[in-house]
Amino acid sequence: MNIKLKVAHQEPEHDFDVPGFIPGGFADHSTPLVRNCWYVAARSSDVSRDIISRRLLGVDVALYRTLAGEVVAVRNRCPHRSFPLAKGKLVGDILVCGYHGMQFDPSGRCVNMPAMPITPTNANVRSFPVVERAPLIWIWMGEPDAADESLVPDTHWLSDPEWKSVGDTFHMKSDYVSMHENLLDQTHFPFLHPGAIGTPEYARSRLKVRVEGDVVVIDRELRNSPPPGVYGVPTGLTGKPVDRFSEARFVSPALHTAYARIIDNDDPSGQPRTYRFNITHIFTPETNGSIHYWWFCSRNFKLDDKAIDEHLYAASSKAYQEDVDALEWILETVSNDTEPQFDLNFAPDKPGLLMRQILYRLAGEEAGHVG
Amino acid sequence: MNIKLKVAHQEPEHDFDVPGFIPGGFADHSTPLVRNCWYVAARSSDVSRDIISRRLLGVDVALYRTLAGEVVAVRNRCPHRSFPLAKGKLVGDILVCGYHGMQFDPSGRCVNMPAMPITPTNANVRSFPVVERAPLIWIWMGEPDAADESLVPDTHWLSDPEWKSVGDTFHMKSDYVSMHENLLDQTHFPFLHPGAIGTPEYARSRLKVRVEGDVVVIDRELRNSPPPGVYGVPTGLTGKPVDRFSEARFVSPALHTAYARIIDNDDPSGQPRTYRFNITHIFTPETNGSIHYWWFCSRNFKLDDKAIDEHLYAASSKAYQEDVDALEWILETVSNDTEPQFDLNFAPDKPGLLMRQILYRLAGEEAGHVG
Amino acid sequence: MNIKLKVAHQEPEHDFDVPGFIPGGFADHSTPLVRNCWYVAARSSDVSRDIISRRLLGVDVALYRTLAGEVVAVRNRCPHRSFPLAKGKLVGDILVCGYHGMQFDPSGRCVNMPAMPITPTNANVRSFPVVERAPLIWIWMGEPDAADESLVPDTHWLSDPEWKSVGDTFHMKSDYVSMHENLLDQTHFPFLHPGAIGTPEYARSRLKVRVEGDVVVIDRELRNSPPPGVYGVPTGLTGKPVDRFSEARFVSPALHTAYARIIDNDDPSGQPRTYRFNITHIFTPETNGSIHYWWFCSRNFKLDDKAIDEHLYAASSKAYQEDVDALEWILETVSNDTEPQFDLNFAPDKPGLLMRQILYRLAGEEAGHVG
Repeated sequence: MNIKLKVAHQEPEHDFDVPGFIPGGFADHSTPLVRNCWYVAARSSDVSRDIISRRLLGVDVALYRTLAGEVVAVRNRCPHRSFPLAKGKLVGDILVCGYHGMQFDPSGRCVNMPAMPITPTNANVRSFPVVERAPLIWIWMGEPDAADESLVPDTHWLSDPEWKSVGDTFHMKSDYVSMHENLLDQTHFPFLHPGAIGTPEYARSRLKVRVEGDVVVIDRELRNSPPPGVYGVPTGLTGKPVDRFSEARFVSPALHTAYARIIDNDDPSGQPRTYRFNITHIFTPETNGSIHYWWFCSRNFKLDDKAIDEHLYAASSKAYQEDVDALEWILETVSNDTEPQFDLNFAPDKPGLLMRQILYRLAGEEAGHVG
Repeated sequence: MNIKLKVAHQEPEHDFDVPGFIPGGFADHSTPLVRNCWYVAARSSDVSRDIISRRLLGVDVALYRTLAGEVVAVRNRCPHRSFPLAKGKLVGDILVCGYHGMQFDPSGRCVNMPAMPITPTNANVRSFPVVERAPLIWIWMGEPDAADESLVPDTHWLSDPEWKSVGDTFHMKSDYVSMHENLLDQTHFPFLHPGAIGTPEYARSRLKVRVEGDVVVIDRELRNSPPPGVYGVPTGLTGKPVDRFSEARFVSPALHTAYARIIDNDDPSGQPRTYRFNITHIFTPETNGSIHYWWFCSRNFKLDDKAIDEHLYAASSKAYQEDVDALEWILETVSNDTEPQFDLNFAPDKPGLLMRQILYRLAGEEAGHVG
Repeated sequence: MNIKLKVAHQEPEHDFDVPGFIPGGFADHSTPLVRNCWYVAARSSDVSRDIISRRLLGVDVALYRTLAGEVVAVRNRCPHRSFPLAKGKLVGDILVCGYHGMQFDPSGRCVNMPAMPITPTNANVRSFPVVERAPLIWIWMGEPDAADESLVPDTHWLSDPEWKSVGDTFHMKSDYVSMHENLLDQTHFPFLHPGAIGTPEYARSRLKVRVEGDVVVIDRELRNSPPPGVYGVPTGLTGKPVDRFSEARFVSPALHTAYARIIDNDDPSGQPRTYRFNITHIFTPETNGSIHYWWFCSRNFKLDDKAIDEHLYAASSKAYQEDVDALEWILETVSNDTEPQFDLNFAPDKPGLLMRQILYRLAGEEAGHVG
């Protein structure tokens, strides 16, 4: 099936770089979750010597740190009698089940079963590969052999001293497909976020979409136009014509990044000055109908200006809360409806549909349904 | 199957006008809902320029009024990305989706999609025929072609200046089958509504049941007997022998009406005086296990007497609350029970069983299972 | 299948009296409930002239006492229109339905249907055999013909004047299989109940397990060792070496008993003195995922010592609350997990596994799946 068949109207201003014929369908909230992917399990500050549990891709995971500070993630279910291991305790680096005292080292291997004279060393609890890239802890819930640390996506600006970030967390009843589609679709800005982000000129600006492997990228540029408030206030460029380049990127099922460069060609220094904003959206499905959502808004200028922190936090929080509300209403509507519906698709939906085809294909490959 | 086979005992005092052999079974709470029927969507006062949503027969419907005051009902789900349209806004008579600003006129036709240069006029949201007969707004959720305004049932007394009504609303966890059966069954009065409605003489009075097409009617007459309190107090005839004629009518899946005439043959005027009460019971399934229930108690005398309003409201509310409680307990019992049960049927259940056969046949015809 | 195949390690210190080859599998929380068994419906003090309802093995049961004080248990659903009979009323010994006034005698037989001129004496509501052995009321929810009062298990110490009992009730979201397994497994004591019950010497003491028909018994003896606090405080023998004999018994799906004898061979009387404790654990499934749990701790000495009552109540309550919490967490874990798990079994699990085989076989026999 060619995606063009699903689009009601061709939007001639947009220039899509679609890699030819794409077979298969579009993921939605009911599509099996893609597991072979690095997801964020927690923020670094969430995990300590107090064991916590968190449901990730439908699996309860217990998370703690060793004495040396390494993060450990194991299935939160003792292999003996299913006691939730996060309700146990740590003795040094050893996780002790709270029911029969069965002990597991950080690799998940049983190192003692008090009820037995000989340690059943072939017993173990599944342990999950984790990689900490502060402030994030990434986890691999998929095929253990496929866990490749080099695939952890780049989010270095979250810890780079050249950048300053604000951010927050939502636990929401939605699905990552809809959230990714929301972020690849900028035509909703003036309606769901009136007055907040986007300007009429931006909405009309030329859009380029390209697919690079399993990544979808939207590029946009807008020259000689005042920035929207969310960027104008921090830069002090409100009302001043600037050049603006932005990229929205579906990096993986776990990550969407949005980069913006605001270029002031009339900087008092006499040289063009570039202001950069990197927005990071992180999704980890809890189940097919709920997700952990972390966002960060990072900038590379005026790092110590608390007023800018507050402005960006307030403006971002408001907009993302509007997204959260809308996407929760939508999943509730879709879940409760007893009538069938076949969504209409329009040209601006193409980036989202491309992403949904990728998610569909990845899920299908994992399920062995696609060759 | 002949209905007589299902009845444990033939009650010889009653005279049933059963139209011979009736094939098919009896609807219960799990039978598919009859859709080709005018149901009440809301009271007139519920619908305004503020969009509301209400689940009717399992479908979320958005309801609003045009600037001219016409009621509009459309599916509460945008055909593009399923945003609940009631969360959008009205611009004049146009309903604007809150996600991407897609616009629909009162007929449900798309009149603008801001993200598109050309309006996708073949796009639309399903609109439902509505007919306002104040204080009620009727809606047709069935086959669009079958919507015939002449089939909206008569409830003129609810707006006729010759009548005065009191009423109220319940949102209850029950099913319309059980509620209709309750209303066609008057043998429960002394037990579920002790002292409130019905008298021993009335319970023993002669009953005539007839089926007219898909309508079931029970007629009863009782001569020279004092009225029950609910009728005695408003008429001032407590304790005085009167003639009483009553009709209980299963009008449609949406409506049960009960008419009572109290005739005082010893009126001070020297002429027999007739007092009339029309009781209106309206049911709209929300789902198979919950209904919207509106009731009205109307009279054609002493229209301005507030004390009578209060008496009828209090007496009716108490009795209908008892019905609501009982029917909710029953559905909860039936839904939670893990043991099979085959209900016993007795002769006084015949009107209800006739109604349940009609609902069963109508649902079957809609499902195409009955020729 | 031989149970030994399922055990990871053979514990050589333990001496199992396993009756050879045991075919079949192991019950778990999802196994159909065994119905042909006397279960406790209520404590004697729960049932009076006020009708109560309680869900037992998935069936709602109405419970009341006749004027003579006999306990009556009938299905809490009228055979006519499913009204919950516990919402009706008692007239003498007759249970009157609150909907149409249908009347049932204590055997469940209909003795009057007011809407009918002739009583439909073939109508009835299912009545359940009950046997009161104060403070317990036992009920038979299985095949009526199999109800044999002689099978009501012995709990005479709960009413014997030679004994004094304290006890309490939990309504918990767990299953009887896991609770019985918990009680047949004493290796969890130091971990789930640290410091409370069991001592290191006791945990190492020799264990004998035997199966007698459908009963599993664990015997343990420990000589010349100080008792744990729960027994030491009441007896005044804290720190003093005593002999200790204990038995844990899976009596039936409804009952686990634990007897302990503490023998002070150095009693001031010059004769060995025996102190006895009988612990009674009673389980009645409400559903497959919730149970009514009653426990009693009985002793045969210092019957009037309130301080001992308080000590035993406090110590027992604490320990059983820990069991309740753990078993609820486990069922929640098992129920929510989307990943498969095959529990590891160790040698100390043998008593529990034997019990689970019995439950499995009994359930299978009732289902007709086992010859």
